[in-house]
Amino acid sequence: MKIFNYKEVDLKKAEEGSQNLYVRWLITKDMGAEHFAMRLFEMEIDGYSPKHKHPWEHEVFILQGTGVIYSQEQEKSFKSGDVIFIPANEEHQLRNTGKETVIFLCLIPFL
Amino acid sequence: MKIFNYKEVDLKKAEEGSQNLYVRWLITKDMGAEHFAMRLFEMEIDGYSPKHKHPWEHEVFILQGTGVIYSQEQEKSFKSGDVIFIPANEEHQLRNTGKETVIFLCLIPFL
Repeated sequence: MKIFNYKEVDLKKAEEGSQNLYVRWLITKDMGAEHFAMRLFEMEIDGYSPKHKHPWEHEVFILQGTGVIYSQEQEKSFKSGDVIFIPANEEHQLRNTGKETVIFLCLIPFL
Repeated sequence: MKIFNYKEVDLKKAEEGSQNLYVRWLITKDMGAEHFAMRLFEMEIDGYSPKHKHPWEHEVFILQGTGVIYSQEQEKSFKSGDVIFIPANEEHQLRNTGKETVIFLCLIPFL
């Protein structure tokens, strides 16, 4: 077993195409996870993730903040306590539209 | 894409061997998830999960509350914001030792 607080994990700038977005890789292959990774994102005010798609799904839980998620032809608002499932190959983007940092978990499979 | 609040999902009594423990299956195969499931547990005061082991890992994020996790020869306290990785086939048990409901996410692979 491994146990630690999420704040102990390095916060790194997220991928190209994002703005004001940072990521902590909480549970990874290096730790012994065999099937999926847990990441925690911190999206500061005016931040957004890249608008993109890829052949793996996202399982998201919003821990703090408010924003909007765009996915194909839908645009929906989200808030703390919301759950989002984005299937593989579906274009998507999250945006912080609130006045505080959005914090969310986003888990992905190892393909 | 699917988006909903976790409280919209039915709260069911958790498995045998637990006490004061309830589960919401947030993201499942039925929803189209192909690799892993997201569940949210609510462990009321004096609650605990079964002491057991199984051939799949747990990826856990503590959303609220305080407690103790037992895993093989370790016993560690946990609190909100903590991350726990329990490898496959490792005996484990969570207990609420605080004065409020413990709420945590626990994700498991589809094997």
